[in-house]
Amino acid sequence: MAVGLQPAQSLRPIAGVRLASVAAGIKASGAADLVLIALDEGATAAAVFTRNAFCAAPVTLARQHLAGAAPRALLINSGNANAGTGTAGLDNASECCARVAGQLGVAAEQVLPFSTGVISEQLPMPALRSGIDAAAGALAADAWLDAARGIMTTDTQPKGVSREITIAGQRIAITGIAKGSGMIRPDMATMLAFVATDAAIPQLDLQLALEHCNRLSFNSITVDGDTSTNDACLLLASGAGGAALDRQTPGWMTFVELLAEVLTELAQAIVRDGEGATRFVEILTSGGRDEDECRQVGYTVAHSPLVKTALFAGDPNLGRILAAVGRSGLDDLDIGGVSLYIGDVCVVADGQPASDYDESRAAAVMAEEDVCISIDLGRGEARWVIWTTDLSYDYVRINAEYRS
Amino acid sequence: MAVGLQPAQSLRPIAGVRLASVAAGIKASGAADLVLIALDEGATAAAVFTRNAFCAAPVTLARQHLAGAAPRALLINSGNANAGTGTAGLDNASECCARVAGQLGVAAEQVLPFSTGVISEQLPMPALRSGIDAAAGALAADAWLDAARGIMTTDTQPKGVSREITIAGQRIAITGIAKGSGMIRPDMATMLAFVATDAAIPQLDLQLALEHCNRLSFNSITVDGDTSTNDACLLLASGAGGAALDRQTPGWMTFVELLAEVLTELAQAIVRDGEGATRFVEILTSGGRDEDECRQVGYTVAHSPLVKTALFAGDPNLGRILAAVGRSGLDDLDIGGVSLYIGDVCVVADGQPASDYDESRAAAVMAEEDVCISIDLGRGEARWVIWTTDLSYDYVRINAEYRS
Repeated sequence: MAVGLQPAQSLRPIAGVRLASVAAGIKASGAADLVLIALDEGATAAAVFTRNAFCAAPVTLARQHLAGAAPRALLINSGNANAGTGTAGLDNASECCARVAGQLGVAAEQVLPFSTGVISEQLPMPALRSGIDAAAGALAADAWLDAARGIMTTDTQPKGVSREITIAGQRIAITGIAKGSGMIRPDMATMLAFVATDAAIPQLDLQLALEHCNRLSFNSITVDGDTSTNDACLLLASGAGGAALDRQTPGWMTFVELLAEVLTELAQAIVRDGEGATRFVEILTSGGRDEDECRQVGYTVAHSPLVKTALFAGDPNLGRILAAVGRSGLDDLDIGGVSLYIGDVCVVADGQPASDYDESRAAAVMAEEDVCISIDLGRGEARWVIWTTDLSYDYVRINAEYRS
Repeated sequence: MAVGLQPAQSLRPIAGVRLASVAAGIKASGAADLVLIALDEGATAAAVFTRNAFCAAPVTLARQHLAGAAPRALLINSGNANAGTGTAGLDNASECCARVAGQLGVAAEQVLPFSTGVISEQLPMPALRSGIDAAAGALAADAWLDAARGIMTTDTQPKGVSREITIAGQRIAITGIAKGSGMIRPDMATMLAFVATDAAIPQLDLQLALEHCNRLSFNSITVDGDTSTNDACLLLASGAGGAALDRQTPGWMTFVELLAEVLTELAQAIVRDGEGATRFVEILTSGGRDEDECRQVGYTVAHSPLVKTALFAGDPNLGRILAAVGRSGLDDLDIGGVSLYIGDVCVVADGQPASDYDESRAAAVMAEEDVCISIDLGRGEARWVIWTTDLSYDYVRINAEYRS
């Protein structure tokens, strides 16, 4: 059960981008598990990938291909991560790219592979081969929602966002889809996200915009602290909508803000659909010396199993939050300057229990699906927001039973 | 249910040390919750404490008292951590020390306070006052096991170890007790451990021995990664047994090794009794450039919720271990050098799936209560062992229901 998350209902096509989603037979359930995204010539692409040293074969290959050519197609399979699969995994990913290339009449280096699902098993290549052929024959502009479903693993809902904006008289559209529910603590990008705009944007500017927005969105969420081997976020600019933008264009920051909004909504959707989540938790750390230490405190609180189980119980067991702040590794933290709020209820002010603290009010705040924890470190001006979930019986059930 | 842990049956008295354990009424259950340990004059004491910035009032006070005087008494209450309690908490801890001092005829600075239990609530002082008076009248040399029970919180079993050894013709005894089950990722010491020997040992040497052994034992375990606000480990040397030792004595290292053995057995008992634990997991990381990076990898694997839930399921879902190794933050880790074993089953050799890997054998290893995960980083000679538990439904239940 996702927390306060409605399934995406419809997603706006992006000129110059066609998609297909098929059930290739990778998932035992028979659900859609192979998505092909084709780009018209002239598109630019930016990407961020996992920093996990055990990155998957498709991540290695996608990085290589991106460095050498402008991509014309993305192939994404769910149900198998093709990670921890050694040289055989790399060979399989290469064969998939070559087969897509043959079907679409492009070079193999122009195809980027992505995989998500179980780790340490080889791809079922016969299913991939027939699936690729079927997908290549089914490409359509209005298949974004189908694609959002096709990349799901333990997700309970497809995740997608569309926006339109007019900048300097030019209409620009953005549509993005994402998947992810567990093994979520992106360290460059989320599990998988694919975002496209119909504007023409130079590759370097596109990359800068993606890195900036990614840090504010996917790189500020966590479900369980486990950085995936397969994280990737792709930003595509087809240029087929007629608008053109770059860093010098008046309104560039308006575009970047819209992109940040789209990425943040997708990132929050992943948290709301976090494995076993019953609460959506915003952790605002302020008063830090720099953003990094605010992130560090936010992540330490977000990863604490004791804080997460208290959130599951709706129990304002707030000493657990203080304990997590205290062990987060900040140099010479003076607890006499630390304040803590749950929603608008002051729990600790300047290191002392708040004199007017009312546990019943705190309990009422924590009974809500959406909970905000505010931590003021009282030693600077920096702030950062991290989004996370609680830790429930269902998280344990989902991950203890995942393969069975 | 503790994993492969028998409750301590009897513990050897230590000459010069008397103990009492009473039910003061701090715990709602009516179980014993206040322990007093009295030391004859002439004892030396060494201590390590939590490095959590939000350390509890008794930790702050115990540090101050230790710096000023040789301790004559330790007062430990369970059921309330006296942490996050501000200046009132500090005043309460001071009053407790003064009351013990009055009863025993020593200075208040010679009394060290310790607390464990719920955070952010003030001590129930009337219960403490009458409990201290009762305990002071009940001191006895053979009450170590009662004391081990009196310091329990969510522990399911009392934890204690006794050893005797003859060094250079002198007979020496060591007895230690410990408590801890959740909020366990000691960062200096465990939740609470009290170890005494009847040998006479200079304070500086005692401290060095404690710090060395603590790093090998309590500072190598984790249940949930949550460093407590109250961790403390005390090592007392009464000198009342007749033996005398120091760093220059032949056989000093024999004593240190015995101490390490006692501390390791207590530390492992805490893991075996970890909240909701169904498995005892040893993570041996070898082939590292230094011990620190081996510890870092071991802790990252030990804290991974995905690894822990796979261990709970007894599922050799080993990609999760590789993913944790990959995100553990080692500089330029070459996964081509990494090998992974579950028990004696080779899963990954030099970064490639082992050609003779047999999942049914791995599953058999993981079905045992005691599981050993061996990770070889293939880039150096250093090694380190971390002990941890799995993550079960019961961990969530215990911590979601702790206060209710």
